[in-house]
Amino acid sequence: MSTIYTTAEDAEEAFYDAIGRGDLDALMATWSEDEEIVCIHPTGQRMDGHTAIRESWRSIFESNPRFSVHIRSKVRWESMLISVHSVVETLFLEKDQTTHGPMLTTNVFIRGANGWRLLSRHTSAAAEAADNDDDPQNGQKHTLH
Amino acid sequence: MSTIYTTAEDAEEAFYDAIGRGDLDALMATWSEDEEIVCIHPTGQRMDGHTAIRESWRSIFESNPRFSVHIRSKVRWESMLISVHSVVETLFLEKDQTTHGPMLTTNVFIRGANGWRLLSRHTSAAAEAADNDDDPQNGQKHTLH
Repeated sequence: MSTIYTTAEDAEEAFYDAIGRGDLDALMATWSEDEEIVCIHPTGQRMDGHTAIRESWRSIFESNPRFSVHIRSKVRWESMLISVHSVVETLFLEKDQTTHGPMLTTNVFIRGANGWRLLSRHTSAAAEAADNDDDPQNGQKHTLH
Repeated sequence: MSTIYTTAEDAEEAFYDAIGRGDLDALMATWSEDEEIVCIHPTGQRMDGHTAIRESWRSIFESNPRFSVHIRSKVRWESMLISVHSVVETLFLEKDQTTHGPMLTTNVFIRGANGWRLLSRHTSAAAEAADNDDDPQNGQKHTLH
């Protein structure tokens, strides 16, 4: 009874929407259930599998009851089964009205029986300079054949 | 006149071999020439394209004339066109005989006319705890259909 995401972009949007609503179930529903999954947080923690990833996000939501993530899509590579998105994230914490980031993220999606889902997410803090880039590649999409 | 890597593993091995030899040309030859490429260093710098990536590695080799990277493969997802490898790296600097890391890396490879090549590389420092994991998933490979 889960949502079917017909594109990797839909799954990605649902993932960040779930963060903005602090909805752990919705967030976990954007991850693949069929495959081993990995989430690397900017703290340097590497989470394997649904249980560990869920627990890490539960803890993040607990510490930050309300925050949202704004993303800029840098480049997307898309094939039939796997899609890779390189994005730059900025976090906005409502509790103290502060902005954090930028964060650099590589989101990998897989297409399965239930549409596109997250397979791997790798996030790390950007060096200062990454903040003010505004290159023409913004949002460029490559479809691989 | 470039080497054709018949598997993503071959391309990955060639990449780390090139690091160990400090061979910038060989290292750059493991990257895709057909696609936009991205390399995110543990410093938080995000390099786009051959010129920027080459310059960043030239600078790394210049600062560290001799170093090698030992990798542990954690999980690999492989489809017809894209392969994603999640690995843990340990760096060994010969000049002062020190070990650095672990680093968490997501290597993405693409299969093109010249075989498998690097498309995206994202590396960040692991939290302390990541060092002593020795989980049974080590090196697990998933072929996607």
